[in-house]
Amino acid sequence: MEKPVVKRLALIGIGLIGSSLARVTKQRGVADHIAISSRSAETLDRARELQLGDSYHASAADACKDADLVIVCVPVGASGAVAREIAPALKPGAIVSDVGSVKAEVVAAMAPELPETAHFIPAHPVAGTEHSGPDAGFAELFDNRWCILTPPEGADREAVDTLAAFWRGAGSNLEEMDATHHDLVLAITSHIPHLVAYSICGTAADMETVTQSEVIKFSAGGFRDFTRLAASDPTMWRDVCLNNRDAILEMLARFAEDISAMQRMIRWNDGDALFDMFTRTRAIRRSIIDAGQEADVVDFGRPHGGDSLPGE
Amino acid sequence: MEKPVVKRLALIGIGLIGSSLARVTKQRGVADHIAISSRSAETLDRARELQLGDSYHASAADACKDADLVIVCVPVGASGAVAREIAPALKPGAIVSDVGSVKAEVVAAMAPELPETAHFIPAHPVAGTEHSGPDAGFAELFDNRWCILTPPEGADREAVDTLAAFWRGAGSNLEEMDATHHDLVLAITSHIPHLVAYSICGTAADMETVTQSEVIKFSAGGFRDFTRLAASDPTMWRDVCLNNRDAILEMLARFAEDISAMQRMIRWNDGDALFDMFTRTRAIRRSIIDAGQEADVVDFGRPHGGDSLPGE
Repeated sequence: MEKPVVKRLALIGIGLIGSSLARVTKQRGVADHIAISSRSAETLDRARELQLGDSYHASAADACKDADLVIVCVPVGASGAVAREIAPALKPGAIVSDVGSVKAEVVAAMAPELPETAHFIPAHPVAGTEHSGPDAGFAELFDNRWCILTPPEGADREAVDTLAAFWRGAGSNLEEMDATHHDLVLAITSHIPHLVAYSICGTAADMETVTQSEVIKFSAGGFRDFTRLAASDPTMWRDVCLNNRDAILEMLARFAEDISAMQRMIRWNDGDALFDMFTRTRAIRRSIIDAGQEADVVDFGRPHGGDSLPGE
Repeated sequence: MEKPVVKRLALIGIGLIGSSLARVTKQRGVADHIAISSRSAETLDRARELQLGDSYHASAADACKDADLVIVCVPVGASGAVAREIAPALKPGAIVSDVGSVKAEVVAAMAPELPETAHFIPAHPVAGTEHSGPDAGFAELFDNRWCILTPPEGADREAVDTLAAFWRGAGSNLEEMDATHHDLVLAITSHIPHLVAYSICGTAADMETVTQSEVIKFSAGGFRDFTRLAASDPTMWRDVCLNNRDAILEMLARFAEDISAMQRMIRWNDGDALFDMFTRTRAIRRSIIDAGQEADVVDFGRPHGGDSLPGE
């Protein structure tokens, strides 16, 4: 960057997303000053040890003083309380944003708490790993991943542009949509996959006829692909469920119907229908690889034999 | 290897598994001679071009002549017909095996076709990738993966030991269990994960309110993890469904119940129950990594930004 996008950035919460933002902001000079706050003293100490920011604050309000851009990086369920806490400290014209995987409920929780003089522009970087906490972050997390902005009607265009420039500086591609549509899109692309992964891991853990050690031993047959998602942060996912309830229930119902249809095909030996279903999904992976959202390495590039990767 | 395990190996079918076996057998000298057969002339030509074996046969029976070990590497649904075809060509004492993901039905299909003078020892290497065909194979596919033998009651011990030595030579760890238990274990560790992955890809493809391009764009939120399994060979998975029907239907029913329980937790805002469920599954991934069945790289080692892998 030739020039920082904002002078003073405040990060409220410094887990996987917050600490990745701190790292990339520092590395690429997207902001002049990074003020970090965490409600956990231990996490704040760790952020200081890792030298993630320029100043460290036990109080979220303190961190927001004089900030041009405040990004709330806490679990969705805590975002309303954080908004209430920081509201009095926000300077006029400050941009307030978040990183939540759910938007409509977060807007409903945060917006009423924030002063009219601040610009509230919700955002969601569609990026993450199965790890949590300040140590889990890395500067490249957002590279070539999409960040979705959901500016409310009548949002200040300049504020939206500044936030977009900030995320572009962090490596993201930018997209805008309304909060409700965001929640539908993410329900199918992210929330349902996580819930299904958690559920199938639970089903496997509950077998009486197959031991846990057998599940683990033979997981290379497919099961282990689900366990990455099912190792994600439980607090985050509890909050996602509770805050995107309607869209998630709708999608889960559709998914359950599709599972029923598949059960029926299997019960009635409908090999042609099964073959058709198994054929149409192949194209989706190809499209995802072509769109640069997946690496084209066999078997996720897992080592087969020592550390060597299979050539293709 | 100092000494080949068998003199003459016949591979009937030369897709991902067959061609990987051919490669590792050649590379590590597990057999003296590799006879390859495919019912597709095109595939057989490709195997010849890739120099996967020592002789190439349009007829499966021809390939089996004088073979000490015959491994049938065809989709499960074709295994009975192949057994019938090769039976007259088998020399006394020949070992016949397979690589099918389903065992009880394969045994029922193959065993009656084979002569008493041959030793039929079914096997299943729990290894694979999302790619198919002779080009997709690689010699390291079986390294540190489990191969499950399901010898029938009264099986010749020497024949079982020879087959085990062959697979050990190919890099596998060996396990023995009966065919019915195998089918239960694989239903939960492999078949259900694949079916769920296919199903969720289908659900996503069928949305009216979310476009296909949105699903692809934002797949990094979790969806893309399912697409690897859903890109697997449709013929293979149709045959698995039709040949392990009872175990699959039982497991799918359990999974559907667990999805219903989760829907209920979400509908009634039971955050504690959701949190508990999302917590217990984390340990499973750790165990799989500790057991050497998963690589401990963040986000499947996917590149975040250029070709660099995130450090941890």
